Amino acid sequence: MDLAGLIEEITADAAHAVDRGKVADYIPSLGGVDPKHFGIAIVTADGTVHKGGDADVSFSIQSVSKVFALTLALGKIGETLWRRVGVEPSGSAFNSVVQLEAEKGIPRNPFINAGAIVVSDVVLGGSEPREAIGDILRFVRFLSGDESVFIDSEVASSEEQTGFRNAALANYMRSFNNMEHDVGGALRVYFHQCAIAMNCTQLALAGRFLMLDGRHPDTGRAVVSAVRARRIMALMLTCGHYDGSGEFAFRVGIPGKSGVGGGILAIVPGKASIAVWSPGLNKRGNSHLGSEALERLAAATNWSVFTP
Amino acid sequence: MDLAGLIEEITADAAHAVDRGKVADYIPSLGGVDPKHFGIAIVTADGTVHKGGDADVSFSIQSVSKVFALTLALGKIGETLWRRVGVEPSGSAFNSVVQLEAEKGIPRNPFINAGAIVVSDVVLGGSEPREAIGDILRFVRFLSGDESVFIDSEVASSEEQTGFRNAALANYMRSFNNMEHDVGGALRVYFHQCAIAMNCTQLALAGRFLMLDGRHPDTGRAVVSAVRARRIMALMLTCGHYDGSGEFAFRVGIPGKSGVGGGILAIVPGKASIAVWSPGLNKRGNSHLGSEALERLAAATNWSVFTP
Amino acid sequence: MDLAGLIEEITADAAHAVDRGKVADYIPSLGGVDPKHFGIAIVTADGTVHKGGDADVSFSIQSVSKVFALTLALGKIGETLWRRVGVEPSGSAFNSVVQLEAEKGIPRNPFINAGAIVVSDVVLGGSEPREAIGDILRFVRFLSGDESVFIDSEVASSEEQTGFRNAALANYMRSFNNMEHDVGGALRVYFHQCAIAMNCTQLALAGRFLMLDGRHPDTGRAVVSAVRARRIMALMLTCGHYDGSGEFAFRVGIPGKSGVGGGILAIVPGKASIAVWSPGLNKRGNSHLGSEALERLAAATNWSVFTP
Amino acid sequence: MDLAGLIEEITADAAHAVDRGKVADYIPSLGGVDPKHFGIAIVTADGTVHKGGDADVSFSIQSVSKVFALTLALGKIGETLWRRVGVEPSGSAFNSVVQLEAEKGIPRNPFINAGAIVVSDVVLGGSEPREAIGDILRFVRFLSGDESVFIDSEVASSEEQTGFRNAALANYMRSFNNMEHDVGGALRVYFHQCAIAMNCTQLALAGRFLMLDGRHPDTGRAVVSAVRARRIMALMLTCGHYDGSGEFAFRVGIPGKSGVGGGILAIVPGKASIAVWSPGLNKRGNSHLGSEALERLAAATNWSVFTP
Repeated sequence: MDLAGLIEEITADAAHAVDRGKVADYIPSLGGVDPKHFGIAIVTADGTVHKGGDADVSFSIQSVSKVFALTLALGKIGETLWRRVGVEPSGSAFNSVVQLEAEKGIPRNPFINAGAIVVSDVVLGGSEPREAIGDILRFVRFLSGDESVFIDSEVASSEEQTGFRNAALANYMRSFNNMEHDVGGALRVYFHQCAIAMNCTQLALAGRFLMLDGRHPDTGRAVVSAVRARRIMALMLTCGHYDGSGEFAFRVGIPGKSGVGGGILAIVPGKASIAVWSPGLNKRGNSHLGSEALERLAAATNWSVFTP
Repeated sequence: MDLAGLIEEITADAAHAVDRGKVADYIPSLGGVDPKHFGIAIVTADGTVHKGGDADVSFSIQSVSKVFALTLALGKIGETLWRRVGVEPSGSAFNSVVQLEAEKGIPRNPFINAGAIVVSDVVLGGSEPREAIGDILRFVRFLSGDESVFIDSEVASSEEQTGFRNAALANYMRSFNNMEHDVGGALRVYFHQCAIAMNCTQLALAGRFLMLDGRHPDTGRAVVSAVRARRIMALMLTCGHYDGSGEFAFRVGIPGKSGVGGGILAIVPGKASIAVWSPGLNKRGNSHLGSEALERLAAATNWSVFTP
Repeated sequence: MDLAGLIEEITADAAHAVDRGKVADYIPSLGGVDPKHFGIAIVTADGTVHKGGDADVSFSIQSVSKVFALTLALGKIGETLWRRVGVEPSGSAFNSVVQLEAEKGIPRNPFINAGAIVVSDVVLGGSEPREAIGDILRFVRFLSGDESVFIDSEVASSEEQTGFRNAALANYMRSFNNMEHDVGGALRVYFHQCAIAMNCTQLALAGRFLMLDGRHPDTGRAVVSAVRARRIMALMLTCGHYDGSGEFAFRVGIPGKSGVGGGILAIVPGKASIAVWSPGLNKRGNSHLGSEALERLAAATNWSVFTP
Repeated sequence: MDLAGLIEEITADAAHAVDRGKVADYIPSLGGVDPKHFGIAIVTADGTVHKGGDADVSFSIQSVSKVFALTLALGKIGETLWRRVGVEPSGSAFNSVVQLEAEKGIPRNPFINAGAIVVSDVVLGGSEPREAIGDILRFVRFLSGDESVFIDSEVASSEEQTGFRNAALANYMRSFNNMEHDVGGALRVYFHQCAIAMNCTQLALAGRFLMLDGRHPDTGRAVVSAVRARRIMALMLTCGHYDGSGEFAFRVGIPGKSGVGGGILAIVPGKASIAVWSPGLNKRGNSHLGSEALERLAAATNWSVFTP
């Protein structure tokens, strides 16, 4: 079956799925999203865009943004970032403080909340939070080639008002001198970055540089070096789905990063940049139908990184 | 540079390395191994074998054997194994009991000791330990096509006499009903499997079926299905180097499994099956020079699974 | 109200209690005990014995025996015991291995299972398990002045057949060299000591030496020094009720040691040695009605150690 | 020997002690204190005050203040406090977040930092931080009968500027809805309460109500009920010395509360209220010479709560 037919089939089946997982409800703006949504967009290496379902409906990308913020932070301070953040799967929940205590304020990887907050601190640097937020937004627009990507200020403001756990993580790392700038400012950057709104098409476009060994498809110029692109994908594969990362690697076999908004960005090196979205989450906090769609897609296309 | 030249260069540099890590010394038979050893063997998809250094000196493969025992156990009971063992990186040391307590006797993955002991329990089944040990040995000989692979009974016996931590893990899982057969028998199987002695050439040959999507190169017949081969490699990538798995994926980018004897088996899907050996370990318990050699090899050949 | 009247009232109310907790059922011999039982015996400093309810019905004293085994072990090797066992409340469940891992095989205190197993190893010494078990039984008979105290061999044998968690703890400590004798032998001693059967009267009599600053009431001679008696009571107060120890100190205010058979031995220094028994346990694993009876008794008599 | 002679001897020996522990240095105002200081004051039941060494030199009482703040909070909301704070020893360090995660934001007891911050939140109530701080200071002055007790604003301000770990704890509990008022305000109250400066004489006087079953010696009126006084002392005995509480109960045998300023308040029910101070801390964070002095004093006077 060709890719278009496969997408059509997956989308049709998703429409009838009974078990759709549970929509995140820790803030009203997320809790109110209709669980019926399902969207998918695939950009292949030749630039073709395949779409299914709600591929053009915007959603809150949440933790998927950690891929872009990490890329930006690495651009700012390079590999010295890894003195402050690890590259190991955490083995515990996304917002756990237990590991931070044992490892003296060094988060296990840049995709758990604590690690992403350190990344926000790096992106903040000596700037005002507003400038840093602007930098991230501009970068994501540049990657997707779409100026209509925006930050949902209602989501950002809800996150900020309820984000005590993240404030705890930030203060905790500050007590180990692993936050260099204003804790409140870094949190502000973090909450706004999580509130970026994109649709599947935009998200799949934004992921093209990873599929292409670091190069931007429009210019052919390196967004990051090939080595860095591969390392970011390695982190996505080992740490991209919280404490369900091993299972995603096991079942799907391609690097991906999920968010509690129900989005997942998945990359098949040299072949495809894929974005799926369905708001209901499985018990690990990853999109339930999104994970299933990717497993089916990978199986049908042989798109595992472990395929000869 | 061609592969032969690269191997020559890596081997020559390894010979002069000053920091060689620390040889495991918890049993005398391992502690007495000369840290000067370094061997490498690469079997490429066409069947060519490239060797360097001590590629034909036998060593104790230790935890590398977990790949073969897992394959055998999956052959026996199929995917039901995953009711008793997880597929997530552990985030803690290879012999930790902390995770087992929190997760009620279900080991996080089949490559930490607790998980491998459950695998041994499956391989044991209703048989005598001697038979199960024979099954594993025959399977490894079959995979490598070399009948001279053997079990070092001195190592096995040392492990058995000092393996109280593993006995603790087994009894602990037994208390959660996650050991179905005699605890002592399963441990016996486990200790003997870890004591398999192979050289790099044999080990690289034994890994060919993973490189070839599950097929044995000599017969073209499936040892395991393609899906299973990919899943085993996914586990190797996310969990194959204890709590240094993330870093190995990050730096080397190919699935690998290490052992405290200093061996590592690494697979480049469709391209190569690689075995390296150097007895000195880094602080995560993985071969120090072996890891470095693989990082260099992968960089020079672009053999990352994340390469387009 | 006098003590006799108070006991009568407490016993009568216990007979009508609706919520009686949950009888331990991990072995059949315990699970089959009638939850309707309630017994209490108080020996005051002048030697008078006050009884209520099933004061003369035997039950499995289980962990209450840890007080006697500890006393015996201290008699054998003195304060050097504290190099192998701590004196701190554990902050976790009675059979947890987490703390053992963090503290390298040194149990937090002698009243959690791991600590009691080290104590058994000390009592075992170079003897045969049978001899050590005999030593403990003779010691308890001597303290209570009653030769009819016995070991319930059915209970001992059930514990031995299902005690995998304790076997895990013992092997784990052995791996840290904190078991000096045969692991199986020490466990045998431990399981038999837990299977001692006594009634409340015998148990209260056995506790007299603690009430009397270490002296045996019949001879006036020291069973232990005054300092040691006080230290044992300090351990009972801080660690005697698993992770409900703080609450027992808070509510009752006297040193006590509970067992999953539903017994509690509590000591009011210089005033009383008290044994209560009711098989139903609260969620911390301590006798539900027993704890309540002691709280009421302590309140009515002002028998807290914190009373001026 | 009489008490005066004993105090003289203890003070003289303390003057010559070589190992004095390590002065807390996380803020300059504490780090600069001369480790040579040693003071002791004992108020006996008849009101006599015995002093030794630097009994009249002020120091930062730090966590000793938690006893007074707890008493005040219980006065405000009564036993409902225990819905928000436990009464169990923590089994981990004073500022650990691990336990908070496992127990969903309910601190183990009111004497670890997290618990004391909840207590501060209660004392704060709907007031301004300044008013709540005034309430605590007035209460301590009332208990000691000395209006010269003061808050060292330099210490308070240092604590506030470096207290990121405590801010993490507070935000963390806020995320579990276990902080009812402004997090910043509650922290302000907490930091000021810890900065109360007293000398040993004042501190021993402030502890009299606990020695006297809750009554203020000057008026004979109840500061708290007898039951509450005993419960506070039970908490001091089981939780008053961080993760060295068990050892203090074991060696000294009386309820005490220590602070990182090197002070300890210890109560012998009906007999004495004792304050010692020596700035050097042992590895558990409790005054090294202070603990030793109390052990010696308790041994010489038989002042254990476990003495008949």
